[in-house]
Amino acid sequence: MSFFPDVASRASFAPDKMRKVDCFETPRLLVGLNCFEPGQTQKVHAHEGADKFYLVLSGRASVTVGDETREVGAGDLVLARAGVPHGVPEAHERTVMLVGITRSGQFAG
Amino acid sequence: MSFFPDVASRASFAPDKMRKVDCFETPRLLVGLNCFEPGQTQKVHAHEGADKFYLVLSGRASVTVGDETREVGAGDLVLARAGVPHGVPEAHERTVMLVGITRSGQFAG
Repeated sequence: MSFFPDVASRASFAPDKMRKVDCFETPRLLVGLNCFEPGQTQKVHAHEGADKFYLVLSGRASVTVGDETREVGAGDLVLARAGVPHGVPEAHERTVMLVGITRSGQFAG
Repeated sequence: MSFFPDVASRASFAPDKMRKVDCFETPRLLVGLNCFEPGQTQKVHAHEGADKFYLVLSGRASVTVGDETREVGAGDLVLARAGVPHGVPEAHERTVMLVGITRSGQFAG
């Protein structure tokens, strides 16, 4: 069994920029943590052919998907469908998100 | 944006068996909730060509993956890789899990 007890406890932070922590990867799916100190950001970007979701585990941040930006907190789930630009304009607190991203290229476009 | 504030609040329970609540589906990924009343189960089963993860949002349950069974609680993440039998022998409390499953058939086997 691939088992990650209290997955948020695997969070790790860096002073200079948000840090990514991988949990597992299969040919179809990558799941990990995105870990932000207050004020840190994730630049808006897009994944062609790959969907991504964020589930906020703790903290508070602004998240952008397409032309919409929302404030999110613990327990909120956000989906960025393949090709849709998304990012984190700002974490307002120390914030941990569980992130899942399907492997790109399995479907064209 | 596909936005699901406080995703656990979408949980819905049935007296006779565990209930599934879909959140979103893409050609690559289905994400939803598995909602158990105490004593409810999910029979051991396998998905050929599709990976599945459980993130426990609340409650306490036994989860089986392959030949291993563990007690899990809020914040625990479990992966069942494609083809590996998995299920929930018993929920010990009212339990809500966020479940992600990749779409089967995109990779053979």
